[in-house]
Amino acid sequence: MAMHGDEQSLIERFFRPLGGARGDVPLGIGDDAAVLHPAPGFELVVTTDALIEGAHFLAGADPRSLGHRALAVNLSDIAAMGATPCWATLALALPVSDESWLQPFCTGFAALLSRHCVSLVGGNLARGALNITVQLIGQARAGQAVRRSGALPGHMLALTGTVGDAAAGLALHRGQLQSGHPSVATELCQRFEYPQARVAFGAQLGALAHAAIDISDGLWRDAGRLLAQSGCGAVIDAERLPLSRALRTAAGDAAALRYALHGGEDYELLIAFPASNWEPLQALAAATDTPLAHIGDCTEARSLRLICAGVETTVAEAGFDHFR
Amino acid sequence: MAMHGDEQSLIERFFRPLGGARGDVPLGIGDDAAVLHPAPGFELVVTTDALIEGAHFLAGADPRSLGHRALAVNLSDIAAMGATPCWATLALALPVSDESWLQPFCTGFAALLSRHCVSLVGGNLARGALNITVQLIGQARAGQAVRRSGALPGHMLALTGTVGDAAAGLALHRGQLQSGHPSVATELCQRFEYPQARVAFGAQLGALAHAAIDISDGLWRDAGRLLAQSGCGAVIDAERLPLSRALRTAAGDAAALRYALHGGEDYELLIAFPASNWEPLQALAAATDTPLAHIGDCTEARSLRLICAGVETTVAEAGFDHFR
Repeated sequence: MAMHGDEQSLIERFFRPLGGARGDVPLGIGDDAAVLHPAPGFELVVTTDALIEGAHFLAGADPRSLGHRALAVNLSDIAAMGATPCWATLALALPVSDESWLQPFCTGFAALLSRHCVSLVGGNLARGALNITVQLIGQARAGQAVRRSGALPGHMLALTGTVGDAAAGLALHRGQLQSGHPSVATELCQRFEYPQARVAFGAQLGALAHAAIDISDGLWRDAGRLLAQSGCGAVIDAERLPLSRALRTAAGDAAALRYALHGGEDYELLIAFPASNWEPLQALAAATDTPLAHIGDCTEARSLRLICAGVETTVAEAGFDHFR
Repeated sequence: MAMHGDEQSLIERFFRPLGGARGDVPLGIGDDAAVLHPAPGFELVVTTDALIEGAHFLAGADPRSLGHRALAVNLSDIAAMGATPCWATLALALPVSDESWLQPFCTGFAALLSRHCVSLVGGNLARGALNITVQLIGQARAGQAVRRSGALPGHMLALTGTVGDAAAGLALHRGQLQSGHPSVATELCQRFEYPQARVAFGAQLGALAHAAIDISDGLWRDAGRLLAQSGCGAVIDAERLPLSRALRTAAGDAAALRYALHGGEDYELLIAFPASNWEPLQALAAATDTPLAHIGDCTEARSLRLICAGVETTVAEAGFDHFR
């Protein structure tokens, strides 16, 4: 369904230049569909994710950040599969054809596309309540896509980056958390507005991780998903959780732990793997400039437990509320 | 970004059963992304299209029809590329988690998925203004995807099915057109609510058509797009335009021609090809139960002209307004 008059010309002006220069896109935006040449010996990895006003951001959110986040959340899904992102489509509903919104939105979207050599191959623009739906196709070597279900008792659990920062950044932004340190507030807000999907690290996980998930709804909930799909449990050591200095400064140690366990929007990766792969994973982390922390181990018992200073701690289930 | 609580369980209940039984989907809905095995020797054809309340349908529209249409408009894009549809993703924003809406929506969506052996491999559900965004991936033999740009002077132009019916059906539905014949009204409304993408015919166009486009915004406008991208013009014979008896009965001959030229939402295919392919195309049309009419011919002169009883007729540009 092609768009009309001004929408058609907006697609030409704003979306078509995001086609990039991949050699495997013989036909991009501008026909009934795009044509892509998948690489022989690879499998496709496909995800879709939307940012919706009221559910994932508030009215008036910075469009450049939205452009970045809409792509980042999909990049993170592809990274969690051990795949390399290749081709994206973008379906955008906008209440009005507002170029002063579209320009910074596309700047944020394009910068991240370009950084990871992803081509925008399909674009749809229509009037409606603000809704940004991205679909992303990646490629993994045949048989090497990493699922959530491959963790086994005895596997180590490791986490990239730090967790809790994005949720604290959002809380600061919404006035639910105060920080006396402007630089701390800026750092945490950046983690929410410009999450960095672990693309380079994720793309090489296929040979090393047996299970992976990206942390979008909080470590505790997403770890629970990985373990449930794997049919095992785990013990996580609270003292090993990677907390940023900014988060500790802004929230204090106790609240920092709650943000780390239950805050969402981190887009870090949780992986499970046999201890024999810990060294090559550390080498991969170093080579891709990715902090990586061993936070716990998988167990036969199907529960997820938190240990703090050697003592088991009760964790209240409390998810991230996505503005609800 | 996985969904929370009830959304997660709604995805499990309503979307996951639509995964189908394709042998090339080793991993469907339920992980960070799906895994697909493209066929060797084929290229991928990718499109995305959205149905948005207010832009593409009115509040209170029948959810079963919306489920059908959301997929049909994407199937039509894939058919227009000469490709076979394989894998779909669905990102749905709903104001409330209303199962009495989701059930018939999924019934309409699933029936069409199943008819064309398409697997739903990704699903996203979130709260927001009603927005149905589908992305569809098809496959075509390498080098055989049919573009809009391949028409040449001397090529014949042919059109599947009949045009104008869907727009007249919509006009009836909105009270802008009256028909004294209930069966006529039903037939035309069905054309709007349950468009039939030309999937089987389209899938075999690769070897026969040099250019193709699907008619979503009206024959005149979409023919103009195909010709502009091909760098040629055409003469269309008004007397050859395939108009249904229902359309003529409901609208009268003069208005029927206007609906045929400018009405949208037909999802028929317009193709250009050398005269030597007309016989095999007629055989393909017969084999796939697809009416096919020769409506005109491509010209060196870059204009699009309409001939009626041998006399050139002026056509006022008047597109379909998608409820605006």
